[in-house]
Amino acid sequence: MFEIEPAHLVRILDLLGTIVFGISGGVLAIRKKLDMFGVIVLALCAGLAGGVFRDLVIGASPPKAFQHGEFAFAAMSGGLLAFFALPLFSKLERPIFILDAMGLGLFAVSGCSIALSAGLAPMASIVLGVISAIGGGIVRDVLVGRVPVVFITGDIYAFAALGGASLYFGLLKLEISELIASILAVLFVFFLRVFSVRFKWKAPTSPWQ
Amino acid sequence: MFEIEPAHLVRILDLLGTIVFGISGGVLAIRKKLDMFGVIVLALCAGLAGGVFRDLVIGASPPKAFQHGEFAFAAMSGGLLAFFALPLFSKLERPIFILDAMGLGLFAVSGCSIALSAGLAPMASIVLGVISAIGGGIVRDVLVGRVPVVFITGDIYAFAALGGASLYFGLLKLEISELIASILAVLFVFFLRVFSVRFKWKAPTSPWQ
Amino acid sequence: MFEIEPAHLVRILDLLGTIVFGISGGVLAIRKKLDMFGVIVLALCAGLAGGVFRDLVIGASPPKAFQHGEFAFAAMSGGLLAFFALPLFSKLERPIFILDAMGLGLFAVSGCSIALSAGLAPMASIVLGVISAIGGGIVRDVLVGRVPVVFITGDIYAFAALGGASLYFGLLKLEISELIASILAVLFVFFLRVFSVRFKWKAPTSPWQ
Repeated sequence: MFEIEPAHLVRILDLLGTIVFGISGGVLAIRKKLDMFGVIVLALCAGLAGGVFRDLVIGASPPKAFQHGEFAFAAMSGGLLAFFALPLFSKLERPIFILDAMGLGLFAVSGCSIALSAGLAPMASIVLGVISAIGGGIVRDVLVGRVPVVFITGDIYAFAALGGASLYFGLLKLEISELIASILAVLFVFFLRVFSVRFKWKAPTSPWQ
Repeated sequence: MFEIEPAHLVRILDLLGTIVFGISGGVLAIRKKLDMFGVIVLALCAGLAGGVFRDLVIGASPPKAFQHGEFAFAAMSGGLLAFFALPLFSKLERPIFILDAMGLGLFAVSGCSIALSAGLAPMASIVLGVISAIGGGIVRDVLVGRVPVVFITGDIYAFAALGGASLYFGLLKLEISELIASILAVLFVFFLRVFSVRFKWKAPTSPWQ
Repeated sequence: MFEIEPAHLVRILDLLGTIVFGISGGVLAIRKKLDMFGVIVLALCAGLAGGVFRDLVIGASPPKAFQHGEFAFAAMSGGLLAFFALPLFSKLERPIFILDAMGLGLFAVSGCSIALSAGLAPMASIVLGVISAIGGGIVRDVLVGRVPVVFITGDIYAFAALGGASLYFGLLKLEISELIASILAVLFVFFLRVFSVRFKWKAPTSPWQ
């Protein structure tokens, strides 16, 4: 039933997540009337910026995205897909939402795991997991002069990443194996995203707003 | 009269400065109607981004903010304080101004000092001191699509940081002890801020504007 | 006829490019009514940010711009030139365009070359060459809340940098000497810029825009 190795599975999901984030960059770039180069750059930023920042912080140079060409390739493919086949993505809203939720969980957990392995403190590692997951989207939005959607929609998006990275760390503390902890934490993010959208859960805003 | 060690004093002031910068991030986030997560991120960025950039430049990884949890905690506390008790800060305008002026001086001097210790050239170290002091505010403003206030108000703010970092380096050159040089430079920034606001001194703008 | 050493020539062109990028930052800052400090910061960012990011990615710390004071000095000079003599630059539009096209080519090629020497993969090195060339302009524009011009004008600007960095790598693969490859690639960028403006070539935009 489960014949591919976990490491391969993670890599595949990682690349899929990068493509999906790349698509989100490309779609935004086209809406903002950027030219082809803008589309590619926004796709690269959306797909890679979070992980690049994480790697700079932990001192892993060159960052993974610059070390293995397939990540840049995945992000660019997402952007070019949007460039040439934008209408597709209104029809594919549902599968993209699913992939995005998976990418979010996976980037949060793998980011936290990479930071822990690099010897960072727990809280810093969890924060870095969140940054890995949402950093690309923030850079993407700032580049076109938009307040990052992750800050304003009230969606349980960054909170889901935060919950997933925290859960992952908590499970490791309980001496649960890394593989099981990863799977549980990614699933947690995934279902939290799905349920929060389904039941319209919202992040709180300040009572003084 | 002066019973705590200088190093402890610096750490306390450093954390106080981070809290104050965190508050500034939180207040802006609430004004811009960000949700709770946006408030926390903007507080983290305002409190930590300057120092993180400085540490990336000098190759100190992980950056101090990711190494010692208390800095992230201080910045987040500032943001949550704003989130839950915004009205407080209109009443506290004066003490916050005082703390901000101290934080500015302290970040400028400690940033310059850290860069010099890391072997950077004098001019680069002074620039890095300024970036340590104002970088967080710049990232905070860019994230919500605002031209950084430090660039436009004409306030003697970045100039004060520049003056303080330069003075600190100059005093070291005169073979004045690091402790005395630090204190004098931080006080210089502090009083320059206070007097410039009191007497409405302004940075020049281009004659061609 | 050619009595200065190539390394010196590259350094001179590098500094000239930094001054020109600094001028572009200063001019934008004055148009956006920033104060003197904003002018200086925008000039520094425009002149240095691309190379700083490149150096952070390849793990060269401190980045070249913080190691050798003359780069910060060149960028600042450009900003102050704009500050004190803005009207000059409407008359100098043509020489500035020429210097900018040279700077673009030079930064793209030297960025790619530095990344290759640091052991990065070809595609990553080419991307880093492009980032070296256009990163400063992107940061400059984002800081004043403008969508980076490089993304929207449709000008053959980033594409020229991409073409130059790719050509440079391709020529190296053909075992052409580094000096010749550099010169050809910089000239390629330069003439591509000149011809694209002369004949109004434009980057494509998405058919779905």
